[in-house]
Amino acid sequence: MARILLKNGEVYADGSVTKADVAIDGSVIAGVGEVAAGWQADRVIDCTDKLILPGFVNTHTHAAMTLFRSYADDMALMEWLETKIWPAEARLTGDDVYWGTLLAIAEMIRSGTTAFADMYFFMDDVARAVAESGVRAALSRGMAGVAPTAAQALTESEAFYRDWHGGADGRITVMMGPHAPYTCPPDYIKKVTALAAKLGAEIHIHLAETTGEVAGCVKEHGKSPIALMNELGLFDLGVLAAHCVHLSAEDIAILKEKKVRVAHNPGSNMKLASGAAPVPSLLAAGVTVGIGTDGAASNNNLDMVEEMRLAALLSKVATLDPLAVPAGQAVDMATAMGAEALGLGGVTGKLAPGFKADITIVDMAASHWHPRHDRLSLLVYSAAAADVHTVMVDGKVLLDAGRLTTIDEERVKREAGARGLRLVESGRKP
Amino acid sequence: MARILLKNGEVYADGSVTKADVAIDGSVIAGVGEVAAGWQADRVIDCTDKLILPGFVNTHTHAAMTLFRSYADDMALMEWLETKIWPAEARLTGDDVYWGTLLAIAEMIRSGTTAFADMYFFMDDVARAVAESGVRAALSRGMAGVAPTAAQALTESEAFYRDWHGGADGRITVMMGPHAPYTCPPDYIKKVTALAAKLGAEIHIHLAETTGEVAGCVKEHGKSPIALMNELGLFDLGVLAAHCVHLSAEDIAILKEKKVRVAHNPGSNMKLASGAAPVPSLLAAGVTVGIGTDGAASNNNLDMVEEMRLAALLSKVATLDPLAVPAGQAVDMATAMGAEALGLGGVTGKLAPGFKADITIVDMAASHWHPRHDRLSLLVYSAAAADVHTVMVDGKVLLDAGRLTTIDEERVKREAGARGLRLVESGRKP
Repeated sequence: MARILLKNGEVYADGSVTKADVAIDGSVIAGVGEVAAGWQADRVIDCTDKLILPGFVNTHTHAAMTLFRSYADDMALMEWLETKIWPAEARLTGDDVYWGTLLAIAEMIRSGTTAFADMYFFMDDVARAVAESGVRAALSRGMAGVAPTAAQALTESEAFYRDWHGGADGRITVMMGPHAPYTCPPDYIKKVTALAAKLGAEIHIHLAETTGEVAGCVKEHGKSPIALMNELGLFDLGVLAAHCVHLSAEDIAILKEKKVRVAHNPGSNMKLASGAAPVPSLLAAGVTVGIGTDGAASNNNLDMVEEMRLAALLSKVATLDPLAVPAGQAVDMATAMGAEALGLGGVTGKLAPGFKADITIVDMAASHWHPRHDRLSLLVYSAAAADVHTVMVDGKVLLDAGRLTTIDEERVKREAGARGLRLVESGRKP
Repeated sequence: MARILLKNGEVYADGSVTKADVAIDGSVIAGVGEVAAGWQADRVIDCTDKLILPGFVNTHTHAAMTLFRSYADDMALMEWLETKIWPAEARLTGDDVYWGTLLAIAEMIRSGTTAFADMYFFMDDVARAVAESGVRAALSRGMAGVAPTAAQALTESEAFYRDWHGGADGRITVMMGPHAPYTCPPDYIKKVTALAAKLGAEIHIHLAETTGEVAGCVKEHGKSPIALMNELGLFDLGVLAAHCVHLSAEDIAILKEKKVRVAHNPGSNMKLASGAAPVPSLLAAGVTVGIGTDGAASNNNLDMVEEMRLAALLSKVATLDPLAVPAGQAVDMATAMGAEALGLGGVTGKLAPGFKADITIVDMAASHWHPRHDRLSLLVYSAAAADVHTVMVDGKVLLDAGRLTTIDEERVKREAGARGLRLVESGRKP
């Protein structure tokens, strides 16, 4: 296994930035700080004027929805789903999903993301893209109890877990993906919970995204989506809950008590006009909150630098408190808390010995990085994805000074671009 | 004068994108569409796979505040001003402002901005930076009636107008800059209005930025800032009003009747937790609304691509209407309406014969520009400042395939970087 030394950089660790070197031995971080003079590296990467961070963790996405990026924007949610997205998704093939996922991964690596949580279909093809590209991912097959595929989805999820959990040298973990309370009735949630408990799998689910969802759940079940899932026992497992925009104080108390991890998606929640999640209240209660982009059809990019900024800005304006979600907290959410949200705390998300060498190196050369009063403020409020210079996962360099090493990006853009257009065109001429 | 032909590009004009060529003759656009075969260009720029737009107009900034970028974030507004910004600004020299403005202009050109409205001090030094760098700007010397410099500011503003209005080959226009109602009492506003009327100058002012400002104005004067300015006759002149976050229906009616142009600053309003301006209501009433970044100390960048996106996203989440400020409207605000806001309608902001050749060419090669379902959606919801490839103002290329032609960027980063740190350091050791 190769040994890499990151020299002369400025390292983000324990909430602050200091000059330090980083030693990488194979897939893990061997040391941060002064590296022993005798330590021999196979490769030295000069990080002068660069910021070294744990790779960003995108805690919620539907990667292959890059295929529908810019297809149908500025629409109401249900009209968007019913007239545009669902008909187009019904025409998807496994190969479409493979190429769409590779396009997403190319964009994610370029913007410094080293791990992501995905929920979609044709997950074998998603896993294939993850395995080939070298990134880390927590994958779940979306399951809808109200769909004709309800039973099949359970079977496929179990097979997918057995085939891929711990796969790609441990870079892939598999979660169960019940879509949401409004698409998964209580008896179906119970089946999913039983299956997950049997496998020892964790859960990835959408919860409390819109006021309509919460009102519908209260009307039908007499309680909020959070309270309902708690009652059904879902939260007795490890759960990653996406959105959590509309929460009561009781909901927040449940999330804290049951150690549910939240994926906050500020860009998607703004674009779809879902609302502003109560992130400061969740963090104050001690809930783990990561940041996610959601799919590229509702964002429309997968840029975690932008998403960190939106997390800080949206909470400030929504609470009318300029101190809400300060820069350092946004970085923590995008890295260490994001890793915890994926069930990968202790594995990735921090620059410390023993952690996986999932690292993003940001170039601070651009004009918008000057003057250099506060590096974390610059990262959150001023930086851009294009500043990301080098990215590694498991100690393997996936973006090398701006060049993707595992993905043929020109081919991916061509394939995914053509497939995206074709999926839409074929719908226009039925 | 040089003749330039932009060939093989996709051109944004009249609200949509079509394949067309653009012919530039000296400082103006000679034609858009099919260019006559006999038309001889001195230079042909191949725009294959590129989007050709009117340059962005940043309708409100304090350019030299780049010096304080990242100096003091995540603070309450008054504490930020009183303990950090004002003491540091008191130490500014004209040369500091010159270098800080050049840093801002470098960043603005790189992100596709060709014109901006600025309000600050040492405006001769700002004008010098604008003249040298080749950009277009509407400049105003900030005036505060409550400051010891109140009378001096009027004198300086008049001299600045006489020296620079129409300067730099017409690229500089000068406006009068009364800071805000809470820093300019009624008698001072009357003096500014009289001076502006005498000169034939327009006005740039901050209005209705925070709930505190509006409540204070109502308490002191019995009416809103908008109503007060109207009563004082300020709106009988051409007025660019920054922020306009907290408005009543009556305020909006006044803005419409008096043709006041609004500079919407979504990033700053979010970061400082000021609130969300009622942009959809303003647009529905027929008010001209441009987009601004505000200064880099409260944003913290000058990236109009990001600001367009924030304008769309903030209005959607604030009104809970996903149809609010669709992509095309955001682009219109960032270009044609922005030009009108600066009093430069008919001069810049559109790609049409006779308009100034202020043009931004965006490369659509990056992964986040695929698939290519809808170019305006991609520009607003997915693109990045780094996609900006070439920029021209008055027919002169200021960014040539990523290279700044009029600014020594390395020197500017070094000078502004060092000055920014020194301004802060000298405050620490009084």
